[in-house]
Amino acid sequence: MTDLPSEFALIARHFRPLAGPGALDLADDAAVFTPPPGREMVVSADAMVAGVHFLPDDPPGFIGRKLLRTNLSDLAAMGAEPFGYLMTVSAPGNTPDAWFADFAAGLASDQVEFGLTLLGGDTTSTPGPISLSLTILGSVEPGHAIRRSGARDGDGIWVTGTIGDGALGLLAATGRLDDPSGYLAGRYRLPQPRLGLALHGVAHAAMDVSDGLVQDLGHLCRAAHLDATLEAAAVPLSQAARAADNLKLCLTGGDDYELLMAVPAAREQALNDAARAARMRVTRIGWFHAGAPAVTVPSVTVLGRDGAAMAFEAGGWSHFP
Amino acid sequence: MTDLPSEFALIARHFRPLAGPGALDLADDAAVFTPPPGREMVVSADAMVAGVHFLPDDPPGFIGRKLLRTNLSDLAAMGAEPFGYLMTVSAPGNTPDAWFADFAAGLASDQVEFGLTLLGGDTTSTPGPISLSLTILGSVEPGHAIRRSGARDGDGIWVTGTIGDGALGLLAATGRLDDPSGYLAGRYRLPQPRLGLALHGVAHAAMDVSDGLVQDLGHLCRAAHLDATLEAAAVPLSQAARAADNLKLCLTGGDDYELLMAVPAAREQALNDAARAARMRVTRIGWFHAGAPAVTVPSVTVLGRDGAAMAFEAGGWSHFP
Repeated sequence: MTDLPSEFALIARHFRPLAGPGALDLADDAAVFTPPPGREMVVSADAMVAGVHFLPDDPPGFIGRKLLRTNLSDLAAMGAEPFGYLMTVSAPGNTPDAWFADFAAGLASDQVEFGLTLLGGDTTSTPGPISLSLTILGSVEPGHAIRRSGARDGDGIWVTGTIGDGALGLLAATGRLDDPSGYLAGRYRLPQPRLGLALHGVAHAAMDVSDGLVQDLGHLCRAAHLDATLEAAAVPLSQAARAADNLKLCLTGGDDYELLMAVPAAREQALNDAARAARMRVTRIGWFHAGAPAVTVPSVTVLGRDGAAMAFEAGGWSHFP
Repeated sequence: MTDLPSEFALIARHFRPLAGPGALDLADDAAVFTPPPGREMVVSADAMVAGVHFLPDDPPGFIGRKLLRTNLSDLAAMGAEPFGYLMTVSAPGNTPDAWFADFAAGLASDQVEFGLTLLGGDTTSTPGPISLSLTILGSVEPGHAIRRSGARDGDGIWVTGTIGDGALGLLAATGRLDDPSGYLAGRYRLPQPRLGLALHGVAHAAMDVSDGLVQDLGHLCRAAHLDATLEAAAVPLSQAARAADNLKLCLTGGDDYELLMAVPAAREQALNDAARAARMRVTRIGWFHAGAPAVTVPSVTVLGRDGAAMAFEAGGWSHFP
């Protein structure tokens, strides 16, 4: 019994520098922290698997940052502030040390940008692809969390940023779409969590768009027992997405990590003010309305540029058949 | 846009019944809860991969319970009480629905036994083996968390339960060891987290034994800058482990999830009282002592039944070479 096994040396080398107060240097059985006084905790977890959620040859720094950012996006959708995170990494036993170094460097950079630290985790081997899981902890003023379920008849449907870049970016990153500037691939690899948009008292409901705009809008409808009409021509597209000319993919592809919100007309000015303060673009793309009585499955109608309803084979992504 | 994709139906069918207060029916972006007032939070995360941490054909209910229990064991080692957990499941797309049903049923049973509920998570597909990650949240009175680092010169080394059953159980479960009663395989598949042992004011340090007794004792030594002597003959073995007659494996094999503690002589009676109240067995197996000056790598000496020091090729398990 002399040296530490290399697993612990690996953790000490790459992950300990990410550890914050309460993490006990990642050398104990658990982390211990005092919750932010007078606030509610907001927690969420997401998994990412190589070949499913990211490309195996993506730069490891981008993989770590995407993992963190997709979780930060869940906090943003609740109107919460980041506090810390725990992460588990299952990687093949022959994963090069440089992979871990680059992965951790990406996380270190985002920790500074978004103001949170690593609290704990686990590193194991796997005979399969790299499998990552991250649990994020945040906080919010009591009662201020924005739910998915609060949309009301007549509320406008709003989104931050632009829609479709992530799905097009996957095509670009895999050589199936021309992307001369690299903008789309960049949007796929590095989503921008919309933290800091002051939604309390402004939005009746919110969620982040991860599985495709049309499918995710269905979630807001289902939670509120409402129907929705979405105007495709109003959906904000980046210049690169307009050039790609694949509207259906933009509306259903997912990986956007923009916020989708229900905002009443009387709060539109407040939303615009909040967006300006947060330096974000917000766009109204449709409206919620009461559905037919006795119909329990909500209906999302997408009006195309010609004003006719568009048909979709599938609304978005599902991991299971 | 009508029905939910099957991924969400799967979550609703199997995991929503596990969701507790604050989980928002697993239908929102995150869970929201009020932290236990006046207490510190204790958080830990562990990953488990099929073929590494459990056998692919283990009963799914046992897999779920082992995942939860290994995390509960981390709370036990800190002297904390369970509050809730988040879990991510990455499984092949063709995983039968019955697998998820049995997996969730095991968790449901343990949630009742240990008093906690599911707060959130994620379910994704993977082209590789089933990969699980669980983050546990617990709480403790401020300042009462038991750390790994507090052992003092002269403290006794104590363990709960019996050592070695988990490692022998893996041999038994894979047909490499006779286990007529099934006791050893049961101990491998279903560890018993030692929650409820009142360690505050009793133990100077504690951790759970997951990577092998000798290696994990090295962690306590390293954290306290002490050496240790372990008396192999004093290490408590189950009847089945004694019959298997493989002491070295018992001391280094891991998967025990018993508590390893540093307890001063003056608190031995208090420990015995606490163990009686918690209906646990505790055994003194050695002592901590000051190391040679200027030697920074701690030394764990294991005295065999003949009083001579035993030699080990490896102290315990490492995931990376």
